[in-house]
Amino acid sequence: MNAATALSKGAATRELILARALEIADAKGIDALTIGTLADAAGMSKSGVFAHFGSREELQLAVLDAAARGFTDEVFVPAVRERRGLPRLRAILQGWKRRTLRYGESRACPIGAAAIEFDDRPGPIRDRVLGHLIHLRKEIARAVAMAVEQGHVRADIDPDQIAFEVHGLVLAFQFELKLFGIERAVLRVEAAISRMLDALALARPEPVSD
Amino acid sequence: MNAATALSKGAATRELILARALEIADAKGIDALTIGTLADAAGMSKSGVFAHFGSREELQLAVLDAAARGFTDEVFVPAVRERRGLPRLRAILQGWKRRTLRYGESRACPIGAAAIEFDDRPGPIRDRVLGHLIHLRKEIARAVAMAVEQGHVRADIDPDQIAFEVHGLVLAFQFELKLFGIERAVLRVEAAISRMLDALALARPEPVSD
Repeated sequence: MNAATALSKGAATRELILARALEIADAKGIDALTIGTLADAAGMSKSGVFAHFGSREELQLAVLDAAARGFTDEVFVPAVRERRGLPRLRAILQGWKRRTLRYGESRACPIGAAAIEFDDRPGPIRDRVLGHLIHLRKEIARAVAMAVEQGHVRADIDPDQIAFEVHGLVLAFQFELKLFGIERAVLRVEAAISRMLDALALARPEPVSD
Repeated sequence: MNAATALSKGAATRELILARALEIADAKGIDALTIGTLADAAGMSKSGVFAHFGSREELQLAVLDAAARGFTDEVFVPAVRERRGLPRLRAILQGWKRRTLRYGESRACPIGAAAIEFDDRPGPIRDRVLGHLIHLRKEIARAVAMAVEQGHVRADIDPDQIAFEVHGLVLAFQFELKLFGIERAVLRVEAAISRMLDALALARPEPVSD
């Protein structure tokens, strides 16, 4: 076995461990993630897991990064297929709704769950969660800014403000799922998305000035 | 000491224990509330606390009810002084903002905290939390419905939908406080409240038809 093969085999094992770790975090949050529980789930020894993730914290950070990539793949990547402006913004909101729905009534995206679990625990994990949330909000704001550029949305709209309000809609949706069940929650979030996009939309596209 | 005095003394002691219990729940959530920690905080014996609250769960339920009365006193009661319609709705939103702000960046209203802590634990506590949240949402919806009756808000608005979206704004505000600090969070929630009320408001009051 040459060095390149060993490297790729090591990388493949790391990916496999990370996939198991993400499953645990998806179900129970990253606080439930220890080297021991992960070794059991992956059918490995603790020292085998340690060889790839030097500490529990390093493992938890890697899982948060994997969850953020999952969010991008599931929400932002499909939306890029839609036309810039309101169609793309709508696709992002629908994607976030679908992802929230996939986690269902009793689970949550590890980043959202960690934001609550770690909000009173300063340190690298809270910082990483904050970083991912800021990135996510920036992407939403960027989609709103594009919709302004395309003349779909009034120019006096603050894209960061809309990103904040979009975040609120998703948080209310998560709450509604837990408290009142899927059927009602979906009706509410659909109506809220429509109301928000209608309020943003210019009645007529602005004429192109020259 | 006659029976009436004994009764009122007992009621006063219960109120005093409950006030200490609410302080603990305000700071750490109702999960931190045990007969033992409360007895220490109130300077009483465990059996003294047990005489007033037969179980830990009964104590936690009493604290949730006390928190709900606190919400009413702080948010709904002052708003009733305002004129029915948009002024009263605005006062409710401002009151909820102030109450959220009073809890600050690292604490939360015991009901909101318990909604997250107990969402995966069916039983009397989760049911009570749900009951208080439903009541709260109904009160918001009632204020919106009144604003429709007063001709301040379009008649095609669904008051329950607005109550859902108001809840989302407060959840986003709590998140923003924790993640980005007070200054930014207050700017965001103020802008969101203005945008929401502007979107609800009829440009002109509807003419009274006869």
